[in-house]
Amino acid sequence: MCQLLAMNCNVPTDICFSFAGFQARGGATDVHADGWGIAFFEGRGMRFFLDPQPSAVSPVAELVRSYPIHSKNVIAHIRKATQGIVALENTHPFMRELWGRYWIFAHNGNLPDFAPTLDGSYTPVGQTDSERAFCWVLQQLRRRFGKSAPGQAELFDELHRLTLDLGARGACNYLLSNGDCLFAHCSTQLSFIVRQAPFAVAHLRDQDLSIDFSAVTTPDDRVAVIATVPLTDNESWTAMPNGSLWLFAEGAPVGHRQTVAGPESRPPT
Amino acid sequence: MCQLLAMNCNVPTDICFSFAGFQARGGATDVHADGWGIAFFEGRGMRFFLDPQPSAVSPVAELVRSYPIHSKNVIAHIRKATQGIVALENTHPFMRELWGRYWIFAHNGNLPDFAPTLDGSYTPVGQTDSERAFCWVLQQLRRRFGKSAPGQAELFDELHRLTLDLGARGACNYLLSNGDCLFAHCSTQLSFIVRQAPFAVAHLRDQDLSIDFSAVTTPDDRVAVIATVPLTDNESWTAMPNGSLWLFAEGAPVGHRQTVAGPESRPPT
Repeated sequence: MCQLLAMNCNVPTDICFSFAGFQARGGATDVHADGWGIAFFEGRGMRFFLDPQPSAVSPVAELVRSYPIHSKNVIAHIRKATQGIVALENTHPFMRELWGRYWIFAHNGNLPDFAPTLDGSYTPVGQTDSERAFCWVLQQLRRRFGKSAPGQAELFDELHRLTLDLGARGACNYLLSNGDCLFAHCSTQLSFIVRQAPFAVAHLRDQDLSIDFSAVTTPDDRVAVIATVPLTDNESWTAMPNGSLWLFAEGAPVGHRQTVAGPESRPPT
Repeated sequence: MCQLLAMNCNVPTDICFSFAGFQARGGATDVHADGWGIAFFEGRGMRFFLDPQPSAVSPVAELVRSYPIHSKNVIAHIRKATQGIVALENTHPFMRELWGRYWIFAHNGNLPDFAPTLDGSYTPVGQTDSERAFCWVLQQLRRRFGKSAPGQAELFDELHRLTLDLGARGACNYLLSNGDCLFAHCSTQLSFIVRQAPFAVAHLRDQDLSIDFSAVTTPDDRVAVIATVPLTDNESWTAMPNGSLWLFAEGAPVGHRQTVAGPESRPPT
């Protein structure tokens, strides 16, 4: 399996602190050593760093950890391979363009029997189930809405429908963003925290590193961080219920939907 | 205008030496300070570094200069903005996927009147004429060949036809690669060199830096380097004729076609 990390903010924010803890899990404090990647939206543009090396020893990861890139939407991934060899083309996140916006996708899980019919509008480059699922999602969105991007609510509705299908195929924790907002699906494991005023000190779980957010923020800043396993050990993270799809915008969760039948297994705390 | 750099090789090779000279032109030895980018194919995968900062002072460029990434096809670009603001979404090279392969495009020139009808299969994210041209090229390739990638010769034929049209719209020096081979179009200015055994010492034009290629190569290695302005001052570069489209594969030019009517203005030397 893999681990996911995302950030969604109301002002461009750097992810250096969170990434320092996440990076350590790629071969140092944890076993996810089969490559890593991170994508930063800056306005409509996108920066994209991928490395099939473990993040704990990657010079590119060292740059990302030390060079503050300010972004409102970030998605990162460290890989423990299940389907597909350890190679750059199988390294998450994946990127495609739809409706004149870049879309970024990362997945933690396993969809062994998911072999959708792809019409050629998006074709996987690598061999992962994850990239196949991403191509299918974008193809279905394009089929549903044609050449014009829908509003956020319509997009969330359609993505919910698609995720009901995807979620039935196996473990499917995923992160998806078009730079405007961020979707997070918890299939088996995903947590989040919203940091806003009054800001406090946070301490990483994977490295002895603290930051006083009150010294580096303004009172209006709001930042949501989403991770497979909470990154800090002195803050209260919310575990998403298994089978829930969340929409984050401007640093806060603004909607969530159930993606499994029956009562949700764990309510938000 | 901008400057272009590409490398096409028969074995994965790092571009650190050439990039050191090219990087200096982005704000130090030359005026192309409106952002830069570089894309490296590694097998089917792709690494992609973009920065709207001048390459001469960019920490990301410093990483690329000092971290040997081995690739058979590389495309880089430093920007002097003509159309589109200085922003990440207008920073070359651009990336899309077609037929399950990534495609990379960078452009030097100006296509002021090029406003093709785009059917939505590829839509520009930024405002440049360059990205518009790239989207149109991929759209036309998909229309021509459908869901299946053609062979290299057919692809070159079709690209030649498309370039006849593009080349009539303005200055259109471009580089295009799908990771297998590399296409280079000289509209107004582009040169190349093929380095192969016996290898010699090369000295950069933009920095006092030399390399003895015989110490870092094997006798079978072959590397083509393509640049707007030759990067070294002690080697013999070939100026491509204005109005010529070249196909590079395995480190050598394997075909070229005229893209303007009448006799070619300058024969290869």
